[in-house]
Formats: sequence, C-alpha cells, structure tokens
Amino acid sequence: MSLQHPIVAIVGATGAVGAELIASLESRAFPLERLRLFASERSAGRRLLFRGEGIPVEQLNEDSFPGTDIALFSAGSVVSRRFAPMAVRQGAVVVDNSSAFRMEPAVPLVVPEVNPEAIARHIGVIANPNCVAIVAVVPLWPLHRHIPIRRVVAATYQAASGAGAAAMEELRASTAAYLQGAAYQHRVLAHPYAFNLFSHDTRVDPATGYNEEETKVMRELRKIMAAPDLRIGVTCVRVPVLRAHSIALTVEFERPIAPEQAREVLADASGVRIVDDVAGNHFPMPIEASGQNDVLVGRIRRDVSDPSGCSLAMFVAGDQLLKGAALNAVQIAERLISG
Amino acid sequence: MSLQHPIVAIVGATGAVGAELIASLESRAFPLERLRLFASERSAGRRLLFRGEGIPVEQLNEDSFPGTDIALFSAGSVVSRRFAPMAVRQGAVVVDNSSAFRMEPAVPLVVPEVNPEAIARHIGVIANPNCVAIVAVVPLWPLHRHIPIRRVVAATYQAASGAGAAAMEELRASTAAYLQGAAYQHRVLAHPYAFNLFSHDTRVDPATGYNEEETKVMRELRKIMAAPDLRIGVTCVRVPVLRAHSIALTVEFERPIAPEQAREVLADASGVRIVDDVAGNHFPMPIEASGQNDVLVGRIRRDVSDPSGCSLAMFVAGDQLLKGAALNAVQIAERLISG
Repeated sequence: MSLQHPIVAIVGATGAVGAELIASLESRAFPLERLRLFASERSAGRRLLFRGEGIPVEQLNEDSFPGTDIALFSAGSVVSRRFAPMAVRQGAVVVDNSSAFRMEPAVPLVVPEVNPEAIARHIGVIANPNCVAIVAVVPLWPLHRHIPIRRVVAATYQAASGAGAAAMEELRASTAAYLQGAAYQHRVLAHPYAFNLFSHDTRVDPATGYNEEETKVMRELRKIMAAPDLRIGVTCVRVPVLRAHSIALTVEFERPIAPEQAREVLADASGVRIVDDVAGNHFPMPIEASGQNDVLVGRIRRDVSDPSGCSLAMFVAGDQLLKGAALNAVQIAERLISG
Repeated sequence: MSLQHPIVAIVGATGAVGAELIASLESRAFPLERLRLFASERSAGRRLLFRGEGIPVEQLNEDSFPGTDIALFSAGSVVSRRFAPMAVRQGAVVVDNSSAFRMEPAVPLVVPEVNPEAIARHIGVIANPNCVAIVAVVPLWPLHRHIPIRRVVAATYQAASGAGAAAMEELRASTAAYLQGAAYQHRVLAHPYAFNLFSHDTRVDPATGYNEEETKVMRELRKIMAAPDLRIGVTCVRVPVLRAHSIALTVEFERPIAPEQAREVLADASGVRIVDDVAGNHFPMPIEASGQNDVLVGRIRRDVSDPSGCSLAMFVAGDQLLKGAALNAVQIAERLISG
C-alpha cells in the first residue's frame, strides 16, 4: 500500500453513510491519490462529486479491488461477508462499517479516541463499531480511564439514518402524508414512523429478550473498551429524528465521583463537546449534533437512585452518519496511513 | 354533595386535557346532573359539545362554584392555587390535575389502581399525579406488591401533549414548515421540535442537576406508592410524538424475579395491557397507546447489567391525555361518587 497517497475505494457509495464518507474524505483533505466508488448494479453509472470532479459509480464485482489500498465498506453485512475477503486478498485494507466481522477476535474494533493501538494488529480488516456503541464510548472512555466503570444502563433515542437513506425518506414522506391526512404504507421500517417511536426493529432473541442492536451495543462496548466484565443493559428505541442518535446513560463507577469531576475529565477529552447549560436549559439535541464531529454531552448529574455516590447520569447526542459511521471510518483510515 | 347525580365543573375546559375530560365523562357515562365548563376570558362564550348538547364556556371567576359538587381542574398550577381553595370553600371537591397541591401531606395523590383508599382522606382537594408518574406506576405497582421494588432507573420519551394543545400544534406546524423548507419560529416550547428531541424544558435545579419534571416524577412515585425509601433516577426527554408518553424502565427488586413472573403479575393487573410479541417485533408504541385507557407494557426481560437476577427491564407507553391526565381524574371522581 502506498501509505502516503493511497488509492481509496468506497463500497456502498450511494448510501447515506457512503455520501458522508465522500464528504468526510473531502472535508478532512484526506491525502488520497484516487477515489473509486462502488455500489450495486442499480446505481452503477451515476457520478458523484468529489473535489469538484464527477466520479463514476462502478458496479461492485469479484475483481474490483486490485490496486486499491484502503476499501471503506458500508453496504451491509451480506456485501461485507462476500466482498471484504476478496478485497483483502487483492491487497486492500478493509475498514468495514457493517457488523460482519466486529466480534471476530482477530479483527480490531476501533474508535480512534479509545483504542487506536488496536489498528496495528489488523490482518486485513478493521471493523467500525455500531453507531450507538461509538456515540456512547467516546464520553464513557475518558471517564472509565479516570475511575473504572462497573455498570452502564442506557436507553437510546435512535435516528432514522441508522436504517439508511431510505428510512430517512420514509420518515419524511410518512410524516408529510400524516400532516396531510393521507394514507402511507411503510416499506422500509417495520412500524409507522410519523410522530411515533418503536423498539429497534431488529430480531429479538427469545432466550434473552434483547434485540440484535442491543446485543451489538453491549458486546461491542466491552470489546472496544477491553472491559470484558463491564455490565451493560441497553434499551434501543427508534425515534422520529433524522440523523443523530441520543442516549440517556446511567453510569456506575468503582468509586464515588462528583459531576464536577466528570465535567473536568470530559472537558479535556477528544471527540467530546460539553453542552450542559443548566441556566439556559440547553443540553445535547440531535439537531445540534447533526453535522458535528463531536459527541455532545450534558445533563451531567449524580444519579440520585444510587446513594453511594458512585453513579452519574448524563445525556449524549452524536451524529449517527458522522462519528457513528463515516467519520469514525475515515479517522481509522487516517491512522492507517499515518502509521 | 349529591353523590348520586353531582354537578360537575371542568376548569380549563378548552385545553387538551379539558377536551379529554369532557370526552371521558361522556364515554364513561358519568352520572352527572349537570356539566359546567370554565376557561379564561379568551375562551368564554364558546360552546363545547357534551352528550349532543352545546355547553357554554363560562369565564372562571371568584364566584363560579356555588352548587358545584366536583370540580375537575386542569388549567395549570397558578389557576389551581388561586381558584381551588375557593371551589372547596364554596362546597366542591376538587380533583386537581396541576402540580400545585400534589406534595402537600394532607392532599391525597391518587391513581385508582394503586391507592384508591387515599381518596377518603381528602379535605377538599385530591391531586391527580404527573402524567409520567401515572404511566409508570400503573405497571410498577402490581410488581411492587409481588416483590418490593428497591430502585427504578427511567428514561422517558414524552409527547407534545404534556405541554398542552399549543405544543401539539407547534409540533405539527414546525414539522410541516421543516418539510417545506420554510422557517418556523418556535413559541411554545424552548427548542425547535421538528424531528428533534430535547431534555424536558422545565427549570433545572443547579444543586441537583434534575429538572422539575424529573423531581415531580420521583417524589410523586414515592408518595403514590407510599414507598418513601424507593430509589428513583429519572431522565425526562421530550420527543416529537403527539400524545402518548413512553418510558424505558430498569427496575430492581428485593429478590430475584423472572420475566415470566412479571408477565403473569402484569397480565392480572388492572389498567395494564401486555404488548410483548417477540416473534412479531411488536411492543408498546405511542400511536397504539393513543386513545387507549390501558398502559401498554412490553420488552419485559432480565436486566443483564444486574447479575443478581433481581432486575428487570421493560418499556411502557400510555396516553398522556387519558390515563396520564383526564381519565385518571374522572376515575377519581367515579370513586368519589361511588363511595
């Protein structure tokens, strides 16, 4: 691989995350020599703008990757399982946004603010974590380094973008229909979305009662933080918001911790912006997190349900498409080329 | 008071809860002799339909209550503080939906499924609890009777209706403007609401970090359940949903409890409907809770962050305007006349 000026490919270039991958590579002036864009047959032939140039979208096939140094995959687990091994055999390093390889012991699962050292251990694939796991871990990690975290209870407020561009459009279209009193047949998500919310519509394991999203978040947080004994309980809920995920976090530490202490730690943490204006009643909101690289953190307070003083409550919001997906992948790629 | 055929007054008849009070009195065939409707000067003179008859809205004043047996107040704390004592002195029993008197030791705070016996202790005013407290306590109470609850961690997903009819209209109008790419200046709520969510916009106590809504929910749950030592931590969030509140609950009991046990208890509980279809991925949703008297409960599972087996997680949704406000008040009034 040319570390200085790699040839970069995006697989799933026409999706919601694909668009943000292109935008992040451009806005961060990623030093690539050439950008290649891949998608399914349906989108092949379109051109997408990158640095003022229309780049053709190519149909992904079994011989797409020779010459590619870094392949950013964001086309779902099925595509990743099939094509990522080919990309690796053809010489690329894959940064995979799907869940296909995240829990494989040999695959680093990386949030650069947390475990950048894991990147060096890759054997071809580096996994980009689940978006909720990323948004949660960015503020949890510096706190965990300050005082180890024992337990996390989380309830999510997840945006449409997590289910892709079609789900965002379904939220817009179904809401417009609702406001006009018109019928709307939902196609992308399992439930009506206009002014509604619902438990994350991934399969629920009848044995545990947890859905796949919740299971991902819990497993991946432990792996990213290298904290196999961390106790985590998550409820994942889809809310009618377009593109940033919010999370209500209750966090139990090994020792008592004051909100002021947490605020000091978070003020120095990278990737975090404190939005905690008590007088102005201004706290993290998805519309303000949208388009931002940082995860917003506020409502930092003692959890009054834990009299030991070891627990804090807080509320976070992060752009699902940026830090929750595309930005994190590009940050991994930046670390790859910087060494 | 004529217990059999009371004269009933609604104060705040033109609000969102007022409309549901009228509808609940009608749908439940409340045996009233006469219904009187009060509102501010602005609304006086309008007529509202009750049992096919247009009832004039009268301007509330200091001499409105002679002859009234039961006054259902839902016009905010300021109106309740001023006029409820007058109503009591003029011979009415007040069922007050505001927070004005809820925490006064002499005032019963009643959810009929939980503490109907408290009604008999009233000295003129019976308080109707905060809507989140009601929606939470209906399923928590039968569980607490089965095995005492030690701790509750809750994150809410609160609808526009909790801030009144104008907030519901702001959600509709601001969302319509957003979809048309038009500007919208929010007036009712503190933050933009279209496809957004925000920490409940009541005042945050700088000493504790909790807002007034959260403080109400925590205090009122303890009072309704007569459980002064119950540990509760709540995060209250306003989501872009029209009229039902949802809550993610993590509940710690004094002894281990299996999800099946909780499901059995809840199946027999009044005011609760279990919606927990794991195979069909169908759980409580605000659009299905809207217009329903029951609180919907689902996602009942072990909280995997508590290895003791003493904790469960669940997700509930209840109509804020019905069980969270008007229906509960009418149910209290029904108990008043029946016994």
